[in-house]
Amino acid sequence: MRIFHYLDVKAEVADEGSQGLRVRWLITKNLGAENFAMRLFEMDPGGYSPLHSHPWEHEVFILEGEGKVFSGGEERKFSAGSVIFIPPNERHQFKNTGENIIKFLCLIPNR
Amino acid sequence: MRIFHYLDVKAEVADEGSQGLRVRWLITKNLGAENFAMRLFEMDPGGYSPLHSHPWEHEVFILEGEGKVFSGGEERKFSAGSVIFIPPNERHQFKNTGENIIKFLCLIPNR
Repeated sequence: MRIFHYLDVKAEVADEGSQGLRVRWLITKNLGAENFAMRLFEMDPGGYSPLHSHPWEHEVFILEGEGKVFSGGEERKFSAGSVIFIPPNERHQFKNTGENIIKFLCLIPNR
Repeated sequence: MRIFHYLDVKAEVADEGSQGLRVRWLITKNLGAENFAMRLFEMDPGGYSPLHSHPWEHEVFILEGEGKVFSGGEERKFSAGSVIFIPPNERHQFKNTGENIIKFLCLIPNR
C-alpha cells in the first residue's frame, strides 16, 4: 500500500486558461495506479478552471467551499459534499463564487 | 452533467465480512461513468471492512474520522486528509479505532 497526507504532495499551478487554481496529483500511474488518477484541486475566491471540453470524464467530490459549475449548457451551485459527474466531451467550467478557498477531488481515467 | 449531494444517495449495508459499514454508490456506470466508480463509505466506531483481496485496486481519500488500515503486511494509521492506494491482489482491511464515524471515498475500476 501507499499512504500519505494530501498536503505532502506538492501543489502545482493548474492548466493554462485557469485562474487561482492549483492541483496536487495524489494517485497516478507512477504509484502503480493503472486505470485512473486522483487529483486534489484548490481554487481561490474568484478563481476558475478553463472553459473547455475533452474526450474523458470527470468524477468530482467537493471537499470544502462553494461555487458554480457550468456544464452541458446549465450552471449549478455546489458546496461541500456535492458530487459532480462531467461526461466526456461536455464543455465545462468550475468557478469559485464564494469567499473561501474551494478544495475538490477530480478523478480522470488514464488514457 | 449530473450533480447531487452525497446524502441524496441511499446508504446500503456493505459486504459480508464487514461490521458497522455502509456504502453509498455515488458515481456508477448507470450514470454514464464507463471507467471507474466512486463510492462513499461510512464506518462506525469499532467497525471494519472485510480482510480480503481482489484483483482490482482501491483509491481512497479519508474525509472524516480516524482509524487503521492493514495492507501488504503492514498496519498504518489514517485520519482526515489521508490518501491510500491499495494495489490489486493485496490483502487489506480498514478499521475504525477512533470514537467518531469514519467517512471515506473509495474508487474502483469498472471490471
